[in-house]
Parts: sequence; structure tokens; C-alpha cells
Amino acid sequence: MKVDGVAWRSIAEDGPHAVRIVDQTRLPFAFATLRLESAEQVAHAIGAMQVRGAPLIGVAAAYGIALAMRRDAADTALADAHAMLLATRPTAVNLRWALARMRAVLQPLPPAERAESAWREAGRIAEEDVAINRALGGHGAALIAAAYGRTRQPVRVLTHCNAGWIATVDYGTALSAVYQAHDAGVPLHVWVDETRPRNQGLLTAWELAAHGVPHTLVADNAGGHLMQRGEVDLVIVGADRVSRAGDVCNKIGTYLKALAAFDNGVPFYAAVPSPTIDWELADALREIPIEERSADEVRLVSGRDGSGRPAQVALVDAATAVANPAFDVTPARLVTGIVTERGVAAPAGLAALFAPARAAA
Amino acid sequence: MKVDGVAWRSIAEDGPHAVRIVDQTRLPFAFATLRLESAEQVAHAIGAMQVRGAPLIGVAAAYGIALAMRRDAADTALADAHAMLLATRPTAVNLRWALARMRAVLQPLPPAERAESAWREAGRIAEEDVAINRALGGHGAALIAAAYGRTRQPVRVLTHCNAGWIATVDYGTALSAVYQAHDAGVPLHVWVDETRPRNQGLLTAWELAAHGVPHTLVADNAGGHLMQRGEVDLVIVGADRVSRAGDVCNKIGTYLKALAAFDNGVPFYAAVPSPTIDWELADALREIPIEERSADEVRLVSGRDGSGRPAQVALVDAATAVANPAFDVTPARLVTGIVTERGVAAPAGLAALFAPARAAA
Repeated sequence: MKVDGVAWRSIAEDGPHAVRIVDQTRLPFAFATLRLESAEQVAHAIGAMQVRGAPLIGVAAAYGIALAMRRDAADTALADAHAMLLATRPTAVNLRWALARMRAVLQPLPPAERAESAWREAGRIAEEDVAINRALGGHGAALIAAAYGRTRQPVRVLTHCNAGWIATVDYGTALSAVYQAHDAGVPLHVWVDETRPRNQGLLTAWELAAHGVPHTLVADNAGGHLMQRGEVDLVIVGADRVSRAGDVCNKIGTYLKALAAFDNGVPFYAAVPSPTIDWELADALREIPIEERSADEVRLVSGRDGSGRPAQVALVDAATAVANPAFDVTPARLVTGIVTERGVAAPAGLAALFAPARAAA
Repeated sequence: MKVDGVAWRSIAEDGPHAVRIVDQTRLPFAFATLRLESAEQVAHAIGAMQVRGAPLIGVAAAYGIALAMRRDAADTALADAHAMLLATRPTAVNLRWALARMRAVLQPLPPAERAESAWREAGRIAEEDVAINRALGGHGAALIAAAYGRTRQPVRVLTHCNAGWIATVDYGTALSAVYQAHDAGVPLHVWVDETRPRNQGLLTAWELAAHGVPHTLVADNAGGHLMQRGEVDLVIVGADRVSRAGDVCNKIGTYLKALAAFDNGVPFYAAVPSPTIDWELADALREIPIEERSADEVRLVSGRDGSGRPAQVALVDAATAVANPAFDVTPARLVTGIVTERGVAAPAGLAALFAPARAAA
């Protein structure tokens, strides 16, 4: 996607020994990139959410392995890098998936061949992410176009968090659908949740503004009211992990929006590339580890000061107890459909949609 | 209630020609009071949310009428003050109720008697607010005590917005229950929603800290997750207007918490003094006017800067469209009970609870 007319990916190779990322902790108040040259730097970037979004952290972790192999391609180095990167974020399954794929490719190779293979494999994962998200966005755009076909009014989409191009290598997941519908001429408007505490909704608003997509920022509290008043035609979000049964683990607060959508007959979709699907989960609510992040994410709010400079204010001091669970699980019973690169499936049909590939794999 | 050991009310007479309020736009970052000497100043204080909370704005408006009568007690002055104060906030019915009561008392009097009568009547409304909220808090505290009786574990209460002493003249509504349970020795812990965009949860945290009640601040998005995980025993909120049928209009986001409570079998209560009940409403969702407040409430976040001084940051600039509906309506089907000064009623039993009084009135 373009920023001020220049094409960017959220992560890109920067020569053969580094990657360059967009530093998402500074967005939307400043656009800056960071060069990462080691697995340790990648692990820090993932943990600090300089790179974020389930698909993107998978790709970043793959490059983290590749950078580790540039330094030391021994079995222990591979195991250590894998363990370090896996420990950065517990909830999104893409991280585990990408690391497992890298290890499966590298482990059988003699160490001398690992560095080049790792770099190529990370590149393949990145390119696949782009292709998958372009494809799933087409299926999602068809849902938006169909809503327009029914009403002939601008389609009112509500999204939560940021499932845009910066949450992936490019295109995004939920926003890939929005961009493709918009680019195809479907009139639409996006309600953007702030998504406290990290306010990733500001990233979504920044992306949508850059692409010229009409949108309105609302507090996280507002979505239920908007749905009650008939002002939302569909909800589409990304996800950090989707179970075989179609349970959707996504940014904290998604479950509340899904409840409101269900209560008001508004379709609720999660748009996910297949690496976000965890086929092994039996009970999403019990088994998915929900990351508890720093209290400072709630205590401190970032914005611009009166002079337009990036600044922070503290809502409460350190004496106030704060809890900061980062994700929740929306049960499949509240989910209308999962939008994937293979098409859209009701939760009960998700496994069948991928059955041939999984049988072949 | 006490602030730093000194007993305060959120509004108090300051001589016979003024009232003194706690300026809630500066809390919790600064504790300051304001002296209001005219109906115009009271109207500004209500509109700007220097005084806020349905019960308190009713009392403030009553004093606004009384201050107007000090200056000019003619019929037109009464009508003008009534109209000006009524226009300040559309959603909470207490404002309309208090103004109607003042007019009913004053209209039949000769103008020369109106100023003294108005002052006395405003004082009566204020004292009644204190008594009513003390009484309803006792009934609410019994619910919390009963929950403790069942589990013998600290009762985990979730609340939204601020329904504490500063939202009333004293005691509060939802927090009156919490304070009285706490003071009676019932172990409890309160989950405090931030309540974006105005972050009234910070007022709740400030009140609870001052009273020594254990509490934890969470983002508005977190409540559904906490209920799914079994970490909430009951939800109790205040309200701005409750219909005869038990529909609860309260701060935006309340509906989302009620949906989550219902989905997880967590009891959901609204604690309201009877002046918050609008007996005339047939369809709360259609008939209650939902105030749309300034976009700047979403755009700007108040806190303290790095030096501890009150400060603001802007999340987005004025080019970003923002919607800011301030209230939503929770349908009675999601409400376990309405806590009033007469006791606790299921929504279907609310009218019966007040039938004798209303027949007598």
C-alpha cells in the first residue's frame, strides 16, 4: 500500500542481512521505519508491538529465524531462536505456525545450507501472505458488494482493532475486503473502533484516510448502540487465532461487538488467512492463552500535544491496579462466516473448506 | 463523602445566593470547586459536565431555577430559566423531573414568594437525593452481601461509568451499594471500566481509592472477557433514564456489558433513585433522545504529563470524522433487577413497586 504516494510493505528485506519494518508504536503520530539485523531485534519488535497483527508477526518471526541462521546455523542456535521468538506473544497462532514451518524446512538441512534456505523460506512466507490476503479480500469484498446490491445504499461496515495492511505484509485481512470493495466502486463507510488500550483503531483510521475510504472514529463503547439503531450492515474483523469449530480469538472487545451483532441480526465475519486457523484446538475458550499485557498500556495514552508533537498522558498513577487482557474469544455461535483465501464458510463449514489441502498436506 | 478527610457534597449551598460544586471536568487530576451564582452558570456547568450524573444534574437544575428566581421571579423569567436548563442535556430524565417539580411549586405562587420557595424546594430535592440514594444503596448492598453469602469469596463487581457520590449529591447509586457493602464488612472488589470517551471510570477509581475499596481499572473492551472467564459476580450500573418496563438508558457501552452479562449468566442491575424512572415512556429505544456530544471528547484525552501536571493529547486531528453518542439503551430482557429506594424489582415488577406512591401522587 502507499504512504504519501510511495509503495510500502510493513516488512521488507533490506539487503541480505536485515529487514526493515514500519515502527507501528509511532503510528499514526509519526511514520518511521526500523532496520532489524538480528533475531533478538525481531523478538523485541514483536514483543513491543513495533510489528503487530497476527499475519505480520508470523512473517517477522520467520525472518527472525533467517537472521539467526546468518549468525549461527547450528541446531542449538535454531532451537534457541525458535524458543526466543515463540515466547514473544502467546495468542496469535501465526507465530507458532511460521516458526514450525521454518524449523521443518531447516532442521533436515546441513547447517551450511540453512542460512540461504531460511532467507528464501521467509521470503516465500511473506509472498504467500500477500497473495493469501489479496485472495481473501476478494471474497470479503464480494460480501460487501452483495450488501450494496441488496440496499443500494453505502454499506456501513464496523471493524475493531487494525486488520489492515500494516497488520500483514500487505493488503490486510478485514481491510483487504474493504479496500477491494472500495476500489471496485462499491460505496461504503467504515465505523472504526478506537480499540483501547492500544488504540489500533487510529491505525485503521490512518490507513483508511490514506486510501480515501470514508470512515468515522467511535469509542469502543459505541458499537452496540450503532447496531441497535440499524446503522451497521456488517461487522468484519481480523483474528489472532480461529479454531476448527470457528471460534474467533481476536483483540479484546471483539466478543462484545459480536454479541451486539448477533442481538441485532447484523452479520459478523472474521477475515483470516489460513495460517491463522489452529486446527488442533478443541476448546478455544479454555485452550487459547490470552496474553496479559503491561498495565502501562492502559495507564498511558499516546497522541499529539498542543504543538502537534507526539506526547503521552497518564490516566492513572502506578498506585491504581490495572488489568490488561489483550484478546478475547468470540464463540462460533455468534459468527456468521469466516472469510479465507478459499472463500467464505460458516463456522461449521470451515474444516470442509480446507479438507482437500489438509488431506494433501 | 470525604476527600482527604474533609466531608464534601458534590453540590452545596454557598450562602443564600450561590451554590458550590466540585468541578468534575478537572477530576481526578485536580480537585477544585466552582461557585455558581446564576442560572446561566448552572446551565453551562451542566452542559460542560462540570456537574454530571443524572441525579446531580437534576439537583443542579433545581438550584439553577432558584438562582434565576433570586434575580427575577416573573413568569417569563421562570419559563426562560426552565427552557434554558432543560436544553442542556437531553437524555437523563432527572433534569426534566426536577425542573417540572420546581415549576409546579413556583408557578402558583405570587412572584414575591418564589425566590425563597425555590431555594427551599431545591434544598428539599437535594436532601431527598441523599436520603433516596442512601436507601437504595442499602438494598444494593444486600445483593452484594447475598453473593458473598453464596460463595464466601470476595464479591467481584463490575461497574461502568461513574455512579458514585459525585454523580449524586452524596452516596451515589451503584457505588452507594458498593460503599455500604464494603462498610458492612463484605469483602469485594470492583472492576472499573474506563468509560471512554470521557473516562468517568477514572472518577470511579478515584472515589473507590478514597474510600479504600479494592478495585482494578480495565479498558471498556475487557468486560466481556472477564465475564466469560467467570471473574465477575454481578454488574451494577447507574442510569440516566429507566422506562416503566425496565429498559435502562445509561452511559454508552452499558448495553454491551449487559449483553455479556446475559450471555454468561451474570446478574445485571441498574441502581436508580425513583426520579430516574420515566413512567411515560412506551418504547425506550425509540423515544429516549440520545445525546450526541462533541467530537473533541473522543479526539482529546486528558491525563497528567510527565511532570504530573494536567495535560491533554489529541488522538486524531479535526480532519478525522468522529461520532460520539453518549448513551445507549439496555433492553429490559437483559436486566436482572432495578435497585431503587423501595427495594429491588425485576423489570416486570418495577411499576408495582411504585404503584402505591404513584396512585397517591
